[in-house]
Amino acid sequence: MSESRIAGQVRVVGTGLLGASIAHALVARGVDVILHDSSRANLTLALDYGAGRRATHEDAPVLVVVAVPPDVTADVVAAELAAWPNAIVTDVASVKRGILDELMAAHADLTRYVGGHPLAGRERGGAISARADLFIGRPWVIAASTSTATAAARLVEDLVIDLGAVPVRMSAAQHDDSVALVSHVPQVVATLLARRLAGAPEPAVALAGQGLRDTTRIAASDPELWVQILGANAIPVVEILRAYRDDLDALLAALQEPDAPGARRAIAETLAGGNAGVSRIPGKHGQSSHFSQLVIVVDDTPGQLARLLSEIGEAGINMEDLSLEHSPGAQFGLVEISVLPEVEQQLMAELESRGWKIAGAFA
Amino acid sequence: MSESRIAGQVRVVGTGLLGASIAHALVARGVDVILHDSSRANLTLALDYGAGRRATHEDAPVLVVVAVPPDVTADVVAAELAAWPNAIVTDVASVKRGILDELMAAHADLTRYVGGHPLAGRERGGAISARADLFIGRPWVIAASTSTATAAARLVEDLVIDLGAVPVRMSAAQHDDSVALVSHVPQVVATLLARRLAGAPEPAVALAGQGLRDTTRIAASDPELWVQILGANAIPVVEILRAYRDDLDALLAALQEPDAPGARRAIAETLAGGNAGVSRIPGKHGQSSHFSQLVIVVDDTPGQLARLLSEIGEAGINMEDLSLEHSPGAQFGLVEISVLPEVEQQLMAELESRGWKIAGAFA
Repeated sequence: MSESRIAGQVRVVGTGLLGASIAHALVARGVDVILHDSSRANLTLALDYGAGRRATHEDAPVLVVVAVPPDVTADVVAAELAAWPNAIVTDVASVKRGILDELMAAHADLTRYVGGHPLAGRERGGAISARADLFIGRPWVIAASTSTATAAARLVEDLVIDLGAVPVRMSAAQHDDSVALVSHVPQVVATLLARRLAGAPEPAVALAGQGLRDTTRIAASDPELWVQILGANAIPVVEILRAYRDDLDALLAALQEPDAPGARRAIAETLAGGNAGVSRIPGKHGQSSHFSQLVIVVDDTPGQLARLLSEIGEAGINMEDLSLEHSPGAQFGLVEISVLPEVEQQLMAELESRGWKIAGAFA
Repeated sequence: MSESRIAGQVRVVGTGLLGASIAHALVARGVDVILHDSSRANLTLALDYGAGRRATHEDAPVLVVVAVPPDVTADVVAAELAAWPNAIVTDVASVKRGILDELMAAHADLTRYVGGHPLAGRERGGAISARADLFIGRPWVIAASTSTATAAARLVEDLVIDLGAVPVRMSAAQHDDSVALVSHVPQVVATLLARRLAGAPEPAVALAGQGLRDTTRIAASDPELWVQILGANAIPVVEILRAYRDDLDALLAALQEPDAPGARRAIAETLAGGNAGVSRIPGKHGQSSHFSQLVIVVDDTPGQLARLLSEIGEAGINMEDLSLEHSPGAQFGLVEISVLPEVEQQLMAELESRGWKIAGAFA
């Protein structure tokens, strides 16, 4: 790995998933990382994993990264600003407005505070799940306030670039409104849907397919963390959920009398609105362009998929995406490979000539 | 492919995704498949793709599969029952109760009718997307009525087994209640969420991650088909959506005053209920057992992933699942490989000894 853009010590407060991942990435770049956690057990675990070193009396960090739960972030940031009068302090909490308000109320030195939020994470938490590459290619919001010094924001931008993330500048308010839409409301919607399964009969749940799996996956997230996030960002979340509920009520009205005049049209327009909305989400490469897909049948035995991909590699074709789907109980799986449309025919010919069974091709 | 369990001609009415896929699978098993579609263009397309042959005056099907849109299914089933007095007739519509009611009202010969519903499909439709393996390993509900002859239900079971699907016997009512929960309500929930994105500011949408992608994926489905499905299964869908809305209202009340006594607890219990619900969904292999995951960094160049998988194959290790994740703009991707927990350490050692960069390992 190349060298860090940050010259000096970095203190990481909080060694959960995000803190430990940041620490690992900085250590890998040769940075002197000081770890602190209010839980001795968590700290020891992170030290054991090599995420940095213990604090000493000689520490002089240039940057403090506060990676603690949202509801204590403002207090910890204020304490770190006071403890290290020469350091820039940033945080990684997934809400930004409330923290800024609290710091202003506490008369903290806002010139040295830069709010931050990496859009990265997993359902699993803790130092044990930490990964140095957690942030690579992810957006990382830098929410500098009007009081933030230019040099302070630039140092946090250096951190973000060091970790391989993509810096996105936004105000705290713009950030909170944005994540309410793309993260917090989806969490609520998935949770409420998953709740319907709790008392469902077993034969019904046994019919579950990929659609239900995808729509409920994030409902497995940590309630303790999410109660803080939703509480801290309640205003924009409530606003979006109210609009959502208005749509739901309108759909319910139409479904209660599906043969009444206008009801089918109302349902169809709701569904079409969903089509339009989903088309706005950028693709995996940050572009909305579409790839061609080939679906190939492979045996569920070691080496089969490798042989397939090796032959695709030999053909000089780059896959844009790949997804593997096992059929429950079946002795083989389906592999869906996405390629640029212009190489689809070539790939199909190559694979067929090598005896692969192509189950489908889609533009 | 082995021989068909069905002796005799099979007539497939409707050559969209499901009809054409059934036809392809039967042709592959050597069955004489007769195709019919009210649209000459669709029929010609399916014939061109080799899904079967045109109808003749000498036809004598033993089985008729009606694969037309839900709102015309009952009419077409009744017509086919009348046209072929010696044939068993089944359908593939995703709602079953209404069709049975209509057939009873029309005094159709219910001894020869067997309702069916394969839990399979794609966002894409049409004969052009058809695949012979569409049903492999999928549940296929067989909803025989109390009037259905035993031999009729058995013939449809033979069809289901021929196509590689898993027959699941249910009443029409039980089926409709089940799919309302695992398919129709998730469709509504995803659609309503995706609608919120329609007018959203571009910088907000640019922060979208995998969570939003997953929760809204099925919102891309065909409105024309779904307006029929939701209309035909409105009663159980409305019932579940009402319970969903009650939960939403309770959560909204808590979020409007997140610091009121009891509000945090209400939010936390809602989230925990989501955890409990999602844990009921069976895993990819139909089991809920967990695999270990390794995350490996690969260059975004042809052949890299193939080399990785080839080396996993050489190590004699079978992957249970694989997912590939490109980072937007980055020149490499992350591969998450799921394996049985007992081989995780071995795989990690094998890969590290071959120079692969392991970004993380999770139980």
